[in-house]
Amino acid sequence: MNVLEVIGRKRDGHEHSPEEIQFLLGGYLRKEIPDYQMAAWLMAVCIRGMTAPETLALTRAMIESGEVLDLSTIPGIKVDKHSTGGVGDKVTLVAAPLAAACGVKVPKLSGRALAHTGGTLDKLESVPGLTVDLEPERFIKQVLEVGIAVAAQSPRMVPADKLLYALRDVTATVPSVPLIASSVMSKKIAAGADAIVLDVKFGRGAFMPDFASAEELAKEMVTLGEGAGRRTVALVTAMDNPLGRSVGNALEVQEALDALSGEGDAELLEVCLRVTREMCELAGVRADPQKAMRSGAGRQTFERMLVAQGGHLERGLPVAPVQVPVTADRDGHVEAIDALEVGLSALELGAGRLRKEDRVDPAAGVVIEAPVGARVRSGDPLATVHARSNELVERVTKRLRNAWRLTDREVGKPPHVLARVDKNGIAKGD
Amino acid sequence: MNVLEVIGRKRDGHEHSPEEIQFLLGGYLRKEIPDYQMAAWLMAVCIRGMTAPETLALTRAMIESGEVLDLSTIPGIKVDKHSTGGVGDKVTLVAAPLAAACGVKVPKLSGRALAHTGGTLDKLESVPGLTVDLEPERFIKQVLEVGIAVAAQSPRMVPADKLLYALRDVTATVPSVPLIASSVMSKKIAAGADAIVLDVKFGRGAFMPDFASAEELAKEMVTLGEGAGRRTVALVTAMDNPLGRSVGNALEVQEALDALSGEGDAELLEVCLRVTREMCELAGVRADPQKAMRSGAGRQTFERMLVAQGGHLERGLPVAPVQVPVTADRDGHVEAIDALEVGLSALELGAGRLRKEDRVDPAAGVVIEAPVGARVRSGDPLATVHARSNELVERVTKRLRNAWRLTDREVGKPPHVLARVDKNGIAKGD
Repeated sequence: MNVLEVIGRKRDGHEHSPEEIQFLLGGYLRKEIPDYQMAAWLMAVCIRGMTAPETLALTRAMIESGEVLDLSTIPGIKVDKHSTGGVGDKVTLVAAPLAAACGVKVPKLSGRALAHTGGTLDKLESVPGLTVDLEPERFIKQVLEVGIAVAAQSPRMVPADKLLYALRDVTATVPSVPLIASSVMSKKIAAGADAIVLDVKFGRGAFMPDFASAEELAKEMVTLGEGAGRRTVALVTAMDNPLGRSVGNALEVQEALDALSGEGDAELLEVCLRVTREMCELAGVRADPQKAMRSGAGRQTFERMLVAQGGHLERGLPVAPVQVPVTADRDGHVEAIDALEVGLSALELGAGRLRKEDRVDPAAGVVIEAPVGARVRSGDPLATVHARSNELVERVTKRLRNAWRLTDREVGKPPHVLARVDKNGIAKGD
Repeated sequence: MNVLEVIGRKRDGHEHSPEEIQFLLGGYLRKEIPDYQMAAWLMAVCIRGMTAPETLALTRAMIESGEVLDLSTIPGIKVDKHSTGGVGDKVTLVAAPLAAACGVKVPKLSGRALAHTGGTLDKLESVPGLTVDLEPERFIKQVLEVGIAVAAQSPRMVPADKLLYALRDVTATVPSVPLIASSVMSKKIAAGADAIVLDVKFGRGAFMPDFASAEELAKEMVTLGEGAGRRTVALVTAMDNPLGRSVGNALEVQEALDALSGEGDAELLEVCLRVTREMCELAGVRADPQKAMRSGAGRQTFERMLVAQGGHLERGLPVAPVQVPVTADRDGHVEAIDALEVGLSALELGAGRLRKEDRVDPAAGVVIEAPVGARVRSGDPLATVHARSNELVERVTKRLRNAWRLTDREVGKPPHVLARVDKNGIAKGD
């Protein structure tokens, strides 16, 4: 096989054989194929696309590049949950413990904050003492004992994804549905769960710009999951406004604790219950997540998980030294809150990271005081900025105020879950 | 300007501004933009294409990357000639001296053999003592005195093309009409002539596979030439069969000398006269190339050029020690001779080069004894192989015999020049 011929086939719009994909990825990992050749191929894939068999072959080759987690010692159907990333998306922190409280085994490997989106690992690490670096043995033991563990992926799993993503990031080849789908699903499949609930977000605060592209990605990921023998369900959800009332690491852990007690933003609670129900259904567990919420079982499971991972909630979550309101400059109803602008503000405050090496400020973030649908008068707080310094607050005040779109008429809440995709196809509507 | 945004614009099918193209090429030349980013952009260009203004901007940026030859001290309209490369294509060696004998000033920078196609510089260097490395001063002086000089391009001219071509060669991004057109025309425009005759070849022995792609390339190159203020005419010509009767460096110089005396293959003479007429017309010279051929003026000009460049024809052209016929294994009429197979045979014999560093054997090559239309009997020679050794002859015998397609019916010669393109558009037919 000749690398130029293989690249030329994708350039000309042909379909690769699984052997060709294995040849390219293997050659790249062995450093026989240089970055510039892989970059040319990635661009050809971005423009020409890939068929379902090609994407499955790429996903398999990625999985085979590293170790796979063996969860066979955990009895029953293990369920994983993944979000494609949003602003204020703390659903994992609520739905996963709630599902575990219902009897679902939840072995979850998670990611870190990137760009304007938050990461579950960074949020968890705001709990004093908590670690997300669990060796496989400890990880499995915790799932057996607590029902849930949330840990960082080992660098020995899917090393091809790390390499390929780093190259895509610097060659304008990130926005490709088959490349995104194979990146996510290779990691989910290697993580060993039997079933996967995906939350595919679109809109201002997400990586997918619109419903159509999110739907396409959801279908592709379900096909890949089912193709690898994993029961897979995807929800397509809106991410135009931030989810819930807080954006920032410790702030979101606190909001998750409240939600597990049934308190807080109604939309957030609804989405979390929906995801939990999907997880229970995939696991074949008959339970009422709402009951587990009311009884406090979900919150207890979450707290047991934090303790098992070394966390000390009793020491208190970190609190920002400066907390300053951003106020409305007119009367009106909140029509929309630009999730991207809120996410970028939180990033600027130190809650996120621009580069992988960056450290996050666990206490920094934004609390939404006037959510979509709220009525405000000039001078009322729209949000509270939590920051290390007044100087940082000043840097984001204007951007945050402009993120709020006010209108004179009353506003209803837009739907959040817009479609559900499983192996049988797509069902639109909540 | 952000390099990822600029690459992303081409990925998404948008048109670049001239500033964006200057930004990309300039950044690449300054090594601020790495190979992998340029490779991704080149692939996007291959698939998405470029508009005429984009291609002109790229051509201009390429020219500005290096020195430009100033020919203003040579009076009158200087005419250059360029072929996109073929097998047995010695038209430059005949038409350019003939045009010079008619009074056209021909300052020509030329290229070397690559893959299965020959190069004018390698052919000329088979003349003992001859040099193609002429400094600008000597080059201009020779055009003033002899009317013609054929030299190698200085590495200080269009250095961007060398870099970009090397990257295209290893990233499967060679076959792109705007990239090919800008590569050729940047060099032609930097070479300083006022007018350019292009021979755009298509078919088995050429780089363009079919008439449509050659026509597209011809149009694009004429647009670029005229856009840079150079009168430009392109002929679209067939390269399915080798041109003339010989393929190889010294062999082609000998065939050119014969053609300048009006002897040899009728098709070759016709094409050479056609190109000469186009050159005379662009220069505004009223002369009859046929007369210059009959009088021997063309041959004299060629010989004066060889002498001016240090050549000693009187020492004789190099002759291969082994000359072996390849014979027909059946009776028939020659319907076609696969130019690619003949070119690859000559390459294997040492007449061409696979890599730029390779040295060529000036005496090696193939002489066609049975051209298209000829009738042969089993055992008659189809070709004579000129080689360094019998072992080399054996390596190509089967390939050469298979290059001849014999048929039972009589065969007519196919047309050679299929279209002419100038700023007013395309005229099909000879």
